[in-house]
Amino acid sequence: MTSTPVSRPDEVRRYNRSSLLRLLHVGGPVTRATLATELGLNRSTIKTLVDGLAEAGVVEERVPRPGRGAGRPSLLVLPQPQAAVVLAVDVQVEHVAIALVGLGGLILGRNSWNLHGRTGEPGEVITHVLESTAWLAADLGLKPVACGISVPGVVRRSDGQVHEAPNLRWSEVALGARMSAGLGVPVVVGNDAELGALAEHLRGAARGASDAVFVSADIGVGGGVIAQGSSLRGSGGYVGEIGHMVVNPHGRACYCGNVGCWETEVGEAALRRALALPQDSPRGAIVVELRELGQDAAASLARLGEFAEWLTLGLVNVVNLLGPELVVLGDLFTALPPALLDRVGEEVRTRSMVSRAVGGVRIEKSSLGADVKLLGAAEAAFEGVLDSV
Amino acid sequence: MTSTPVSRPDEVRRYNRSSLLRLLHVGGPVTRATLATELGLNRSTIKTLVDGLAEAGVVEERVPRPGRGAGRPSLLVLPQPQAAVVLAVDVQVEHVAIALVGLGGLILGRNSWNLHGRTGEPGEVITHVLESTAWLAADLGLKPVACGISVPGVVRRSDGQVHEAPNLRWSEVALGARMSAGLGVPVVVGNDAELGALAEHLRGAARGASDAVFVSADIGVGGGVIAQGSSLRGSGGYVGEIGHMVVNPHGRACYCGNVGCWETEVGEAALRRALALPQDSPRGAIVVELRELGQDAAASLARLGEFAEWLTLGLVNVVNLLGPELVVLGDLFTALPPALLDRVGEEVRTRSMVSRAVGGVRIEKSSLGADVKLLGAAEAAFEGVLDSV
Repeated sequence: MTSTPVSRPDEVRRYNRSSLLRLLHVGGPVTRATLATELGLNRSTIKTLVDGLAEAGVVEERVPRPGRGAGRPSLLVLPQPQAAVVLAVDVQVEHVAIALVGLGGLILGRNSWNLHGRTGEPGEVITHVLESTAWLAADLGLKPVACGISVPGVVRRSDGQVHEAPNLRWSEVALGARMSAGLGVPVVVGNDAELGALAEHLRGAARGASDAVFVSADIGVGGGVIAQGSSLRGSGGYVGEIGHMVVNPHGRACYCGNVGCWETEVGEAALRRALALPQDSPRGAIVVELRELGQDAAASLARLGEFAEWLTLGLVNVVNLLGPELVVLGDLFTALPPALLDRVGEEVRTRSMVSRAVGGVRIEKSSLGADVKLLGAAEAAFEGVLDSV
Repeated sequence: MTSTPVSRPDEVRRYNRSSLLRLLHVGGPVTRATLATELGLNRSTIKTLVDGLAEAGVVEERVPRPGRGAGRPSLLVLPQPQAAVVLAVDVQVEHVAIALVGLGGLILGRNSWNLHGRTGEPGEVITHVLESTAWLAADLGLKPVACGISVPGVVRRSDGQVHEAPNLRWSEVALGARMSAGLGVPVVVGNDAELGALAEHLRGAARGASDAVFVSADIGVGGGVIAQGSSLRGSGGYVGEIGHMVVNPHGRACYCGNVGCWETEVGEAALRRALALPQDSPRGAIVVELRELGQDAAASLARLGEFAEWLTLGLVNVVNLLGPELVVLGDLFTALPPALLDRVGEEVRTRSMVSRAVGGVRIEKSSLGADVKLLGAAEAAFEGVLDSV
């Protein structure tokens, strides 16, 4: 059914208000003049909106620090973080992090803990998140109005059902429903790489890009795609599993039933093999070893040559299939030696037809560090909140 | 810049009018009552719109053939094909087809010719298309108002620049500009697989699907993606090149600079190798051989086992990356033995994590036959036409 674009004045006002809030939330403090230009509204409409939001305590206006220009400085409109607080949860294979994130994307408080291999117990994880949230909220005197959760697995976005999260050993966990019952607020559950892509797109290396892919290596390898400015999802809202693209048909068996998945060739275990580290060595040892190796460009290219080839091959496929303007590499990939990343970027640009067409895809490191999925989970929660602040 | 959803009455009318036309164009004849339900408009609005369109000669109302029901039959609203005619052009490696296509998707007249290996001459192709169109239009007494062109290559949608069409040996051809200058109407140039996907989505096997992939094997292998109901394009409007996904890193060299591209493993040349046909045998020989082999399920699985494995592997990757509800196979793939296609479908469903999540991806044959790209080119042209008929 097609709907008719009829708009009543109160609908227009609500639409303008949430557009303005979204701009402040993502872009940070701006002047009324900039708001008017960006939203295509006249100054008196902006004044009414900003006054209303200031009265409700959602924004504040402040004199900016004196600049070089002469004349009276324009007032800056700032989002008030406490006006809307969401809970962000990042469930990883080895640890869980939670944070209360305010309007504007500011982390107001956080907590994290190690899972000590007890990932197979979703009930325990849920209980711990709920308890830890209660303490953190009480401590800060804040109450989250929504929750976003990042999970490394195949997630149904509509109701937060975790279909399969193999590295957590979770299968068919009604995470959305259970967390929502425990918290009493709406809960959005997303695939970790999808949420990483969202965070990079709104606040990180892919800011302003219309078409970007975020690929991150943890124990697994996952990818999230921004296509024409929005998250790309497939049937039923499920996000693709880039890590289970087969790159090496003669490679190692993957738990998913294939052999030579990208994940088996460039994930954490593959990095340990390439670095000749024991498979039970901690993740920190990989990072230390990579940093050290990074001091010597020639040595890093020699030792990680085969690893680099599989990384390149997977990226060529991603670029040829999706045609992004840039690929953002996250997690362990950010620790790779710079010389190796340069080489991989060059190879991808040379070997991908689509990169040649778009004038050269960029391969960049994540700029959000370890918080990328937590920030993405917060943004997923904010999506439903900004219309009703 | 964000626009405000203010709607003036004439905008609303225009919007309703083009929604109604789109419905008739894609869905075919319907009653006023169905139009009212589908568009969410009341019957008097529908009456005004239909009367206006009938007066302009864009639609006609007819008594349907008597059915079994009692009572007065409801009048059917039919699109009038001549009310808006577009030129569709399908440039393939071996031949070119043109058609004049009317509102509702009816092919009103067509012509095609063999290129006899002279694909490297875009100027000749363009001249021939223009001449042939002039004859066809004069013959039928019709004048196209827009043109859509399908090209097997990397195409910039914004201006119809063909960046690289290797199998045609075209590089940087300003096809959109040159055709538009010659025809005097707007021209849309699209990648052939993208347009194939569009046609299958609107009129073929993927009708009603929200997320689908169309993969076709000609000399090259190309794919078009429908994501959340729209064509998926990457940076700069370029469509991905599924055929240049590497599936076999130890495979044959591809002209694109990689080895073991999907195209080299499952394209026309690969089928000739698998069938032990000489590489200079005509395409018809492949189809004949496949049809014959299809009579014997066991023999077809034995002889095309390796081919089927590469087809499966590429499809697993496509499904894991994009999560479609179905994949439509076009061109030469439609001639593959049924037993082989069944086997491939089963394997893809078993080996793709994402297929397991979405409850089983379907692998189906194109239902539009050899016209799929021509129909897709027509639809690309109609996109800009329906608002102004």
